[in-house]
Amino acid sequence: MTNPTAAMLVIGDEILSGRTRDANMHYLAGELTKIGIDLKEVRVVSDDRDAIVDAVRALSGAYDHLFTSGGIGPTHDDITADCVAAAFDVPIDVRDDARAILQAHYDKAGTDLNAARLRMARIPEGAMLIENPISAAPGFSMGNTHVMAGVPAIFQAMVASVLPGLTGGAPLLSQTIRINRSEGDIAGPLGALAQQFPDLSIGSYPFQKDGIYGANIVIRGTDGAQVDAAMTQLAGLFPE
Amino acid sequence: MTNPTAAMLVIGDEILSGRTRDANMHYLAGELTKIGIDLKEVRVVSDDRDAIVDAVRALSGAYDHLFTSGGIGPTHDDITADCVAAAFDVPIDVRDDARAILQAHYDKAGTDLNAARLRMARIPEGAMLIENPISAAPGFSMGNTHVMAGVPAIFQAMVASVLPGLTGGAPLLSQTIRINRSEGDIAGPLGALAQQFPDLSIGSYPFQKDGIYGANIVIRGTDGAQVDAAMTQLAGLFPE
Repeated sequence: MTNPTAAMLVIGDEILSGRTRDANMHYLAGELTKIGIDLKEVRVVSDDRDAIVDAVRALSGAYDHLFTSGGIGPTHDDITADCVAAAFDVPIDVRDDARAILQAHYDKAGTDLNAARLRMARIPEGAMLIENPISAAPGFSMGNTHVMAGVPAIFQAMVASVLPGLTGGAPLLSQTIRINRSEGDIAGPLGALAQQFPDLSIGSYPFQKDGIYGANIVIRGTDGAQVDAAMTQLAGLFPE
Repeated sequence: MTNPTAAMLVIGDEILSGRTRDANMHYLAGELTKIGIDLKEVRVVSDDRDAIVDAVRALSGAYDHLFTSGGIGPTHDDITADCVAAAFDVPIDVRDDARAILQAHYDKAGTDLNAARLRMARIPEGAMLIENPISAAPGFSMGNTHVMAGVPAIFQAMVASVLPGLTGGAPLLSQTIRINRSEGDIAGPLGALAQQFPDLSIGSYPFQKDGIYGANIVIRGTDGAQVDAAMTQLAGLFPE
């Protein structure tokens, strides 16, 4: 049985211009790995309607889940919700349940729910709201597409709301060994090991530190006994 | 006149599993912005032949330049060069110029140029080598696609070799103002400003710090006078 698959779509000019360093990809990747959903692809696109609609269609069609980050705030460049509605070909408007959440939040703060803030209650028809415990404005799940905020603290809280509801697979187990030999010396035996264990993913991550060349070899798989066997064999090939 | 466009393809299971945090995207984005090449899209895919070939074809076809990072080392999971050759439909083999570079490097170090290391001299027919001042094994430019190492120090050195040879556009100028009002209060006037200056990109990046809600507003464009005019007008709308 293979694990469910996922893609991520990061939306925002600020990442592509180099102004902001994305933090959400790394976070989501780690959380999905824990519950056995395989993140297969990430795309980063700008705040451009066609680019977002095309990417949502392609990725939600190709994978079991799509997670998006960014573009759901109150300003003119926040167009993700409208683009997701367009990609799924459903209408979008201010929805009563989302408006009620915002109204309660801003009433409590003594702040006006003005037209800009009300944009955050625009939810595609048929979508399920995702709770935002930090700043109230909800995300939503439309079909297999989970639409979340770009601000890392809010993104992480929304991921925590969404993931428990998804069916995971076998969690990916991994073991790492550090070998103080240059990657060119490790590569031959490592390739043979990879052929011997076709169900495992064996990665080599070279480093150079204080004049020592070496590599961290990571063996990943869902069958713990196989991971153990491969690691034991590898350690025997390169004794300290 | 519009600026040249670019895409980036990050190759590596270790990013998608959450083991490693990608650093090359942020670096490349900043360097391209400086020379007026617009980074339009980034994709991250795993060490999978079909995924890499499809992404190289799609991105090299859609943008003026494609930059790739990762998968050009000596181990079995380093398949980027072969995938780029397949995407461009050209043969690939060990090339004499690349072999000579490796031979000289390993002779000097007293290390054997074994079969695994020799894989790093596999270069698609017609490609131009990219210098690697750190560990010798070259990258290459095949058509509009620039293939570079994933190790950040080597990636950055290769970017420094490639970019001076490319034709840039008008560098993107940007000004930032911090407004200590919540984004929902800023959004209305900001939208009107964006409509008044259609050639500028106006982004809003909210923050919350020590109980204060605010946003950094970034105005970007290639016409400095327009950026100045929009910033002056914005500052007047929200005096301290």
